[in-house]
Amino acid sequence: MSATIHQLSGGQRPASIEPLMQLVAPELNGVNEIILARMQSDVAVIPALAGHLISGGGKRLRPMLTLACARLVGYEGARHHKLSASVEFIHTATLLHDDVVDGSGQRRGKKAANLIWGNEATVLVGDFLFSRAFELMVEDGSLRVLKILSSASAVIAQGEVDQLQTQRRIDTTEDRYLRVITAKTAILFSAACQIAGVVAESSEQVIESLEAYGRYLGIAFQLVDDAIDYGGDAETMGKDAGDDFREGKLTLPVILAYKRGNDEARAFWRKAIEDGKTDDADFAEACRLMAGAGAIDDTLERARHYGRLAQDAIADFPAGAAKDALLETVRFAIARAY
Amino acid sequence: MSATIHQLSGGQRPASIEPLMQLVAPELNGVNEIILARMQSDVAVIPALAGHLISGGGKRLRPMLTLACARLVGYEGARHHKLSASVEFIHTATLLHDDVVDGSGQRRGKKAANLIWGNEATVLVGDFLFSRAFELMVEDGSLRVLKILSSASAVIAQGEVDQLQTQRRIDTTEDRYLRVITAKTAILFSAACQIAGVVAESSEQVIESLEAYGRYLGIAFQLVDDAIDYGGDAETMGKDAGDDFREGKLTLPVILAYKRGNDEARAFWRKAIEDGKTDDADFAEACRLMAGAGAIDDTLERARHYGRLAQDAIADFPAGAAKDALLETVRFAIARAY
Repeated sequence: MSATIHQLSGGQRPASIEPLMQLVAPELNGVNEIILARMQSDVAVIPALAGHLISGGGKRLRPMLTLACARLVGYEGARHHKLSASVEFIHTATLLHDDVVDGSGQRRGKKAANLIWGNEATVLVGDFLFSRAFELMVEDGSLRVLKILSSASAVIAQGEVDQLQTQRRIDTTEDRYLRVITAKTAILFSAACQIAGVVAESSEQVIESLEAYGRYLGIAFQLVDDAIDYGGDAETMGKDAGDDFREGKLTLPVILAYKRGNDEARAFWRKAIEDGKTDDADFAEACRLMAGAGAIDDTLERARHYGRLAQDAIADFPAGAAKDALLETVRFAIARAY
Repeated sequence: MSATIHQLSGGQRPASIEPLMQLVAPELNGVNEIILARMQSDVAVIPALAGHLISGGGKRLRPMLTLACARLVGYEGARHHKLSASVEFIHTATLLHDDVVDGSGQRRGKKAANLIWGNEATVLVGDFLFSRAFELMVEDGSLRVLKILSSASAVIAQGEVDQLQTQRRIDTTEDRYLRVITAKTAILFSAACQIAGVVAESSEQVIESLEAYGRYLGIAFQLVDDAIDYGGDAETMGKDAGDDFREGKLTLPVILAYKRGNDEARAFWRKAIEDGKTDDADFAEACRLMAGAGAIDDTLERARHYGRLAQDAIADFPAGAAKDALLETVRFAIARAY
C-alpha cells in the first residue's frame, strides 16, 4: 500500500470496489443467509417486496464495510454478521420509505417497489424490516450497538424530513445541505463501521476513527451520487440521470450553479426548482449551466476532500488487506462513473 | 371489588375509564413530560406533526396500562415511565403510517396528519418516533424489554400488511381477522402490560398473566371499535362512522353479516367490499343488513368473551385500587358508546 496507489485523482489504474468484495466475500455469504432468513414472513408479500430490493442489485456496501472494519481491527468472532444484516435492513427500510416519499420511478435499476406493490405495502414492509433490524440487535445483546443504531435511525428520519423541507427551496445553503446528507446517508455508513469496533472491544480511539472513516466516506459517496445525477447514466447509477433535478432536489451542484450564476441563470434555477419546470430541455440547460459554473467539478472536489479525510481517519491502522481495501473503497467512491 | 361491579353486561352504573385515569394521574404527568421532551427536534415540522397526534386527543391508554400494571405488581421505581413513553411513540408511529395507508380523513376527531403535512412527512415523522422509542428503551437498558417491543413492532407491521391483503376480500375468515387484530392492536396492549412485570422483576407467571390481560383487552377493544364503526358517532369515536365500510375493511361485523346473509345480501357485501360501492345509501343498507343478521350484537358478544378472559387473567392478583381500575377498564372497553 502506498500513497501513490491510493491517491484520489490521477491514479493509473481504475478505482475498483473489487478488493473490498474479495476481502469479505466468504463472510458476506453468511450475512446474506441471515438477511434472507430474517426477511421471511407468513405474510407472502413481505418477502416478495423486501426481496425485490434486497435480493436484486443491492451492493451490500454497508455490511461489507462492517466486515472489513472488523477485519481491520482483528476481530475474529461472528457477532458482526447479524449486526451487519441489521444495518442492511435499516438501509432497505429507509430506501422503501424514500421511494414513497420521492415518487422516484427507478431504484437500483429496477422499478421502484411502490410502483409494483403500492405505497401502503411499501411503507409497512419498511416498518417490518426496521423492526427486524432491532430484533437482530437485541439477539446480539449489545446495548452500545443498540444505542448507535437507534440514534442513527432517528438522525436519518430527521435528515429526511429536513430534506423534504428544503426540497423546493433554491436558497438552501451548502451548510444545510451538508447537514442533510450527513444525517440521511453518512450516519449509517459511520454506524456500520463503528459497530465493528464495538464488537471487537477496540479502544475508544479506534472506534472513533472507524466512525469518522465511515462518516467521511458516506459524505463523499453522496456528493458523487449527486454529481452523477447531472451526468451519469441509468445503468451506472441504478437511477435515471436527472431524477434529482426533476424532483426539485437541492443538491450541491444546484446550490453552486445557483450561487455562481448570473441573473438569467438564477431565474432558470428558481423556476426549475421552485416551480418544478423540469422537462428534458430544461435538464439539458441545467447541465449546460452547471458545466459553465464548474458546479460538477467542484462538487467532486468537495468529495475528494472528504475522501482524504476518510483515508486519514484510518492512516494509523496497521497495513494489510483490510486497510488496502478500505482505502481503495474511498478511491472507488470518488472515481466511479467518471 | 366484586363480581357484580365488574360484570361485563347489565351493570347498573355506566362503565368508566375514570378509575384508571385517577389511579395513574400523578405518574402520567411524568410520562407526558418525557413524551413532550423526546418528540422535540431542530427540524420544526417534527414536533408540530408529532404533537398534532400526541398532544391532541390521545388517551394515553397504553402508558396508563403500563403504569396501572406496575402498581398492580407493587413496583415502586420509575423505569417504566420512559418505557411507557416508548410504547406511546410506537403507537403514534403506527397511527401516522396507518393514516397514510388508510387515507382516512379523521383521527382522534382531528384532521389526519397526512392531509395537513402530506404523506411524505407523515411517513418520516413516524420513522423518527419509532427510532426515538428505541432510543428510550436503550436508555433504560433492559434487553428483555427491547426484545418484547421490537418483536411487537415486527408483528404489528406484519399484521398491517396482512390486513392490507384482506382489505377487499369478502371471503376473509373470522380466524384470519382475529389473527390480524391480535397482531395490529392487541400485541401492543399486551407489551404495555407485560413490561411492567419485567421492570418489577415479577415471576414469569405474573409476567405471562399481564401479557394475557393486555392481549385480551386489546382484542376486546378492537372488536368494539369495529362494531362502533357501524353505529357510533364521530364524536365518541374520533373517527367517522362508516370509515371502515368506505375503506372496504373486512371487520368481524362484515364477516358475520356476509356469512349469515342470503344470496342478495352476499351480492351486496361483495359489491360493497370488493368493488368499493360504498356511498351513504350503501352504508345505511349495510347497517340494516347487519342488524338483521345480528352481526353487531354477536361482535359485541365476542368482545365480552375476550373481556372475561382479560379479567380472569388477573383474577388471582391481590385486591386493591390497581386491580379494580384494570377490571373496570375491561368493562369500559366493552360498554363504551353503547
